[in-house]
Amino acid sequence: METVAIKGTLTATHIDAFRQIVGEQYVLLDEESLNNYGHDETEHLLFPPEVVLRPRTAEEISAVMKICNKDRIPVTPRGAGTGLSGGALPNLGGVLISTDRMNSIVHIDERNLQVITEPGVITEVLQNAVKEKGLFYPPDPSSRGSCFIGGNIAENSGGPKAVKYGVVKDYVLNLELVLPTGEIIWTGANVLKNSTGYNLTQLVVGSEGTLGIVTKIVLKLIPLPKYDLLMLVPFQSLEKAGEAVSAIFRAGFTPSALELVEIDALKIVSKFVDSAVVPVTDDTAAHLIIEVDGNHLDTLMVEMEAISTLLTEYEAGEVYFADDAQQKAELWKLRRRTAEAVKVDGYTVEEDTVVPRAELPGLIRGVKALGIEYGFKAVCYGHAGDGNLHIRIKKEGVANSADDPQLIAGIKALFALVHKLGGTISGEHGIGLIQKNYIDIVFNETQLQLMRGIKKTFDPNNILNAGKIFDL
Amino acid sequence: METVAIKGTLTATHIDAFRQIVGEQYVLLDEESLNNYGHDETEHLLFPPEVVLRPRTAEEISAVMKICNKDRIPVTPRGAGTGLSGGALPNLGGVLISTDRMNSIVHIDERNLQVITEPGVITEVLQNAVKEKGLFYPPDPSSRGSCFIGGNIAENSGGPKAVKYGVVKDYVLNLELVLPTGEIIWTGANVLKNSTGYNLTQLVVGSEGTLGIVTKIVLKLIPLPKYDLLMLVPFQSLEKAGEAVSAIFRAGFTPSALELVEIDALKIVSKFVDSAVVPVTDDTAAHLIIEVDGNHLDTLMVEMEAISTLLTEYEAGEVYFADDAQQKAELWKLRRRTAEAVKVDGYTVEEDTVVPRAELPGLIRGVKALGIEYGFKAVCYGHAGDGNLHIRIKKEGVANSADDPQLIAGIKALFALVHKLGGTISGEHGIGLIQKNYIDIVFNETQLQLMRGIKKTFDPNNILNAGKIFDL
Repeated sequence: METVAIKGTLTATHIDAFRQIVGEQYVLLDEESLNNYGHDETEHLLFPPEVVLRPRTAEEISAVMKICNKDRIPVTPRGAGTGLSGGALPNLGGVLISTDRMNSIVHIDERNLQVITEPGVITEVLQNAVKEKGLFYPPDPSSRGSCFIGGNIAENSGGPKAVKYGVVKDYVLNLELVLPTGEIIWTGANVLKNSTGYNLTQLVVGSEGTLGIVTKIVLKLIPLPKYDLLMLVPFQSLEKAGEAVSAIFRAGFTPSALELVEIDALKIVSKFVDSAVVPVTDDTAAHLIIEVDGNHLDTLMVEMEAISTLLTEYEAGEVYFADDAQQKAELWKLRRRTAEAVKVDGYTVEEDTVVPRAELPGLIRGVKALGIEYGFKAVCYGHAGDGNLHIRIKKEGVANSADDPQLIAGIKALFALVHKLGGTISGEHGIGLIQKNYIDIVFNETQLQLMRGIKKTFDPNNILNAGKIFDL
Repeated sequence: METVAIKGTLTATHIDAFRQIVGEQYVLLDEESLNNYGHDETEHLLFPPEVVLRPRTAEEISAVMKICNKDRIPVTPRGAGTGLSGGALPNLGGVLISTDRMNSIVHIDERNLQVITEPGVITEVLQNAVKEKGLFYPPDPSSRGSCFIGGNIAENSGGPKAVKYGVVKDYVLNLELVLPTGEIIWTGANVLKNSTGYNLTQLVVGSEGTLGIVTKIVLKLIPLPKYDLLMLVPFQSLEKAGEAVSAIFRAGFTPSALELVEIDALKIVSKFVDSAVVPVTDDTAAHLIIEVDGNHLDTLMVEMEAISTLLTEYEAGEVYFADDAQQKAELWKLRRRTAEAVKVDGYTVEEDTVVPRAELPGLIRGVKALGIEYGFKAVCYGHAGDGNLHIRIKKEGVANSADDPQLIAGIKALFALVHKLGGTISGEHGIGLIQKNYIDIVFNETQLQLMRGIKKTFDPNNILNAGKIFDL
């Protein structure tokens, strides 16, 4: 099935109307702006929109949507443009709506441990604002210093803390949403438990901007843990590291982060950020980064000790403890900048696989075998505690995965393996534009028809972020 | 808008076909069975179906659904019948599908900390089975000794542990679902993180058996905490108890249970179960039941001490610590049997209000004022830590809330108050049949139209649990 081209004709009348609604200076038509808003962090893709709008309020977005819905003009919502699956790319041209001016934290409700925020707030800014009140919003993608909380909602982002604290969906209580037809609704209520009607909130989280444009977000907060400890553990084999991950949970521990970085990735990022903090020895294949947190430092030390003892059964090498805040920051910098570093190094194609945690060794073995079979190099890193492994792929001369049939075949084989292991093709980056062609590996026609029906219910004219996730 | 009567005509041919599919002895037509399956725990309502089917497999249910869909026969799915909103009542007659024979725990996956279960397993049986492996499935409604896990999925149940560990939706990874049209699908994958398509899993959780019949459930498990401590704290005023609840979280504590029981309810249940464990003094208005759990007994004792010190600021009376397993069991028995006891005492109408936690005092004040205004008596108890307050209402001579216009007006006023406080009309019991008439207090036409569109996508002929939650 193909995406039906629903592109309307943007006229001078439309542009005038948009200027009336959002203000003249927030309607961008120059080529530089169109190019700036025409790409994200996905491979090397560029789809300039016909116009960029930078509204300030839900009401402005509502007015724009009503016009676009009436005249069947494609609309693409966009946060910070840090996405890795092309969800914010205006692949059909039309109107791009940027939420970058909707960047107020509306209210930190200390009585109820909640925050109400606009979508254009940078995730780390939000985290720091609540931290000042002794509160904690755990989900923190690697791009937290630049990504928007609205984009995190769209993709149901995770990050390192998800292994203990859950992902974005576990914190979203309620959303203000502009529907493709222009109505403004709230999806739920600002409560911790809710059995009142269908869970529209959870339906919108992770729907990649295809069901509506989120204009306000109510998030649950939790008390900020007082202490954390961090260690880095080398392993002689990638598979042994994978086995160790599962063993930690089976032994009753719940680390606040449990990350894996393959040695090739670590070497690349160490050079990229000019850090020598991790000594790389010849017999190291991968590292685990393990963090525990809580309110009692002594019990955390007991736990960390017990975990490192357990890991010796998995041929772990000498453990490196981060002694102070600076060493912790240095280690986290290495982990957080891995994606960027390996991308610059030529690993431009990124897959966001997720499997049941104990299947990690099978996935890792499979990736390496498929690389040989299909002629690509791969590095693995990511949120091993959740079974969420990012696989970055390099094939000489191929910048866009869609350009190379052999690479496409290799990715299909990889996703088929993931599916066979009980997993799926995206843990936290979404399907967007570039994984859409693989969606039938994990969903059959019946499942897709349900999703299409939901899409049509919200967006009868298929104007909002059309052609993402699946084709109608 | 009225429910369109979609009742088909059940013929001898249908009954024969059902016998072929599920086996002759599992097709019940006698009056006693029809009456047994015609009620749940909601007020005093009885809607006998025309036939009861007790299938064993998803394939059998699929075959039944195909017939019913073709001939437009109403189908009502039912777990253990412990529901409090009439979600399992066959209000349109037709076919009742009982899941009571689908009662196997399919697989406890200790490697991945997951369990795959059929829907007819009693919640407590499931909890005990995983506990034997050192694992923990936290959601435990008061009816856990009799309710089915499938019903818990339908209503997105909570229970006392939800305040720390979350509700059912936070543990459901994947569901096998028979659609109203007969297809069998899985809603997701057995993974901890998932950004692959719309979240059908979360859409089905809490949809009260209106979108499909759940036939297999994959649940996340966590390590079982080693220790817990329990205390009971009396307060001179209900409002002060409500204020104390919010203060506990603001001080950085996350108890594993934080329950409130008003003194009238405690007196009734103490008598009902013949317990004198809680000394009732004249100046006590309500108690909080507070539990903490974790792996380090010493830190738990420090926490409990700190919480009880904090509570003195809220005019708490003398704290009663449960010293051993028997005392803990006795206290929990009082809490868990409260609903049953007060129902027997004439408080037959039950409301499942939920508000942001800090709004509890306002809700409690409001309930009492509305009782005076509308001529009803109310007792309050429930999951105060989540802002989820069960309000049991007694009005002399009124067993069914729908029979008394003044009572209906009172309930409307109560729900309007809840909505004004930022809350909603059900935290964990669902809307089902009896709260449907109040749904427009919290949802407008736009929100309802989205839900109706979703329902039509899953159930184009409106045959499955039609007329629940909202009318089409």
